[in-house]
Amino acid sequence: MTSASTPSLPGQLNPTPRLLLGPGPSDLHPRVVAAMTTPLLGHLDPQFLLLMSETQEMLRAVFQTRNELTLPISATGSGGMEACLVNLLEPGDRALICVAGYFGERMAEMARRCGAEVHVEQESWGKTFSPDRLREALRRVRPKVLGIVNAETSTGAWQDISFLGALCREFDALAVVDCVTSLGCTPVAIDTWQIDAAFSCSQKGLSCPPGLAPLTFGPRALEALYRRKSPVRSWYFDLTALRSYWGTERVYHHTAPITMIYALREGLRLVLEEGLEARFERHQRHARALRAGLEALGLRTLAEESCQLPQLHAVLLPDGVNDVQGRKRLLEEFGIEVGGGLGEYKGRVWRIGLMGYNSRTNCVFQVLAALEKVLIDCGVHCSRGSGVAAAEAFYASS
Amino acid sequence: MTSASTPSLPGQLNPTPRLLLGPGPSDLHPRVVAAMTTPLLGHLDPQFLLLMSETQEMLRAVFQTRNELTLPISATGSGGMEACLVNLLEPGDRALICVAGYFGERMAEMARRCGAEVHVEQESWGKTFSPDRLREALRRVRPKVLGIVNAETSTGAWQDISFLGALCREFDALAVVDCVTSLGCTPVAIDTWQIDAAFSCSQKGLSCPPGLAPLTFGPRALEALYRRKSPVRSWYFDLTALRSYWGTERVYHHTAPITMIYALREGLRLVLEEGLEARFERHQRHARALRAGLEALGLRTLAEESCQLPQLHAVLLPDGVNDVQGRKRLLEEFGIEVGGGLGEYKGRVWRIGLMGYNSRTNCVFQVLAALEKVLIDCGVHCSRGSGVAAAEAFYASS
Repeated sequence: MTSASTPSLPGQLNPTPRLLLGPGPSDLHPRVVAAMTTPLLGHLDPQFLLLMSETQEMLRAVFQTRNELTLPISATGSGGMEACLVNLLEPGDRALICVAGYFGERMAEMARRCGAEVHVEQESWGKTFSPDRLREALRRVRPKVLGIVNAETSTGAWQDISFLGALCREFDALAVVDCVTSLGCTPVAIDTWQIDAAFSCSQKGLSCPPGLAPLTFGPRALEALYRRKSPVRSWYFDLTALRSYWGTERVYHHTAPITMIYALREGLRLVLEEGLEARFERHQRHARALRAGLEALGLRTLAEESCQLPQLHAVLLPDGVNDVQGRKRLLEEFGIEVGGGLGEYKGRVWRIGLMGYNSRTNCVFQVLAALEKVLIDCGVHCSRGSGVAAAEAFYASS
Repeated sequence: MTSASTPSLPGQLNPTPRLLLGPGPSDLHPRVVAAMTTPLLGHLDPQFLLLMSETQEMLRAVFQTRNELTLPISATGSGGMEACLVNLLEPGDRALICVAGYFGERMAEMARRCGAEVHVEQESWGKTFSPDRLREALRRVRPKVLGIVNAETSTGAWQDISFLGALCREFDALAVVDCVTSLGCTPVAIDTWQIDAAFSCSQKGLSCPPGLAPLTFGPRALEALYRRKSPVRSWYFDLTALRSYWGTERVYHHTAPITMIYALREGLRLVLEEGLEARFERHQRHARALRAGLEALGLRTLAEESCQLPQLHAVLLPDGVNDVQGRKRLLEEFGIEVGGGLGEYKGRVWRIGLMGYNSRTNCVFQVLAALEKVLIDCGVHCSRGSGVAAAEAFYASS
């Protein structure tokens, strides 16, 4: 229904409270909510410029990089992906994109939109790529850019990227990494691993609302950017201009999303107050508790244990559980959101996220209790007893 | 300074309160601030999907259109400009861009990035285009798209677009309008004026934070979109996909910036509660009060009176007033932000905005009092007496 006349107005916002334990967004940290109520500064106010610099400096710490070109793109995570690719790829450039899930496919599609000649290295969903396999593909394709997903949000699989920078250098390729689901949850060591370009989002490991895409470009990516033969096809994502805005020149480009920057700054402060190592350890700890519970309930995950992300588990649904009805019950009876499956796993997995602020004991217990109730009501035989009890036992013993 | 080690952390957010009377962002309405503290829903939660629909329906009312494809782009106003152009222009298409200020230039540059053959119709900054002149240009260029700015943020000039749709139809061109500074302040009657595509922002007339770009596409624009020979170059801004996400299919595209949508929904509720006509009248009223005060201070504006926007005045600086020092005093002594000039008017004008929530008596008095103090201290002879008194007299008599 559409109408040009004034509609009867919707009422005051009053959504039912949820616990967001899906693949993101994750719940906001209360301090992030408070930060967003801070009165606006103008986007060229000297005090705001200082906040921008502070935000960049903390982003560098979280990305573990000294890259000068480190900033939040004024768009969601997918905008960060587009910003990476559209700045590095020109029409006719070869791109090697590693696909083992939904977001690898997205990267391949975006690279095509950039006019690149895209070679897809395909793996089954939930699997990962070995250094040998990638070396072979690099040798065959000789791409300008190798794109890969560090934490595949559709499968919960962790792709090791620690070897990637060195490997890409052997073939003079740029390593571009999707860190949307990893940043703030699992290590992202841009400089140590010699990653040339990476992007992330605000609404998962950083416990902020969706709307910003942290991005970092290293020296080789920067060189490729300035060696382009054609202007960057996107004005909005053009990093040569964004660099002048976020750099010392402060040349106006677009109006920064001020409230979102406030949120990100607070989210980053929280990450660094906790400390990266402590934060990664916390994610591992609560993931182990969750897994103890899932095992007790007889549930398995899509990804193999060796590459299972701590912040996101894609749990295979047992026979007898209806995806849509089950998630509806979780949402309506328990106020818990988990994610459904994507692509070929639609209807076959539930994606449970314990990210950032939500990687904590209460969330583990709540989701296990609710899962157990729903499964038992569906007639699933939870062979090894209570999930909550198993998680409790884990916490007690660790 | 960059460092890969943990930096000493910046402190809690604590900016000095400002009154934002520049070209935007403008201050948030308090109800918008409250709306942003609402706990997150997931972006695929049925309750959030309903909020999306409500937001679209209110956006239609504010754009005065029945266009189904009416939605907020997940980017700032410039992202909305890019979304309009990248969806409508293919490489080699002719675009006629009308330039009489900074944002007309931006539109021309973006159209070039889309691969279009761009013809610029140039006018002096602060002037506007007549129907005859545009007819002549359309006849000469025969473009696919005519791009024009309804409210030029760099000059404060109002461009009449009421005739544009009919005129463009004579030449089978699409009328694309930048409504960034007009929506919520001055009339934007998309359907009556037969505008084919338009975009705006969240941080001016709608009193929300920057970060969203309301956009609307009419039937002819939609037809052009689906007749494209090549895929839209941008994945992020591809309206064929965004239409499926925001339409009844709800096909996941990217994670909507939930908190920003909460803010926009509340900003739109405020607009429609007030009523469009009452809101436009309010903007006119406080603009007249401001102008009475500016005249008393002997100040002139860049735009001619016949095309002066009520929501934004570019005031020419009198001799003896240093731009940067003067704005610094306004900011630091009075807590008031006004905008500096852009392009050839850098250092020569101050841009004073009375937009949305900030179009009110208090703001008029505050900015006139501060201006008067700064001008007198610079030795400017304010010939006709007090600006505040003149505004008071206007309010008393109207």
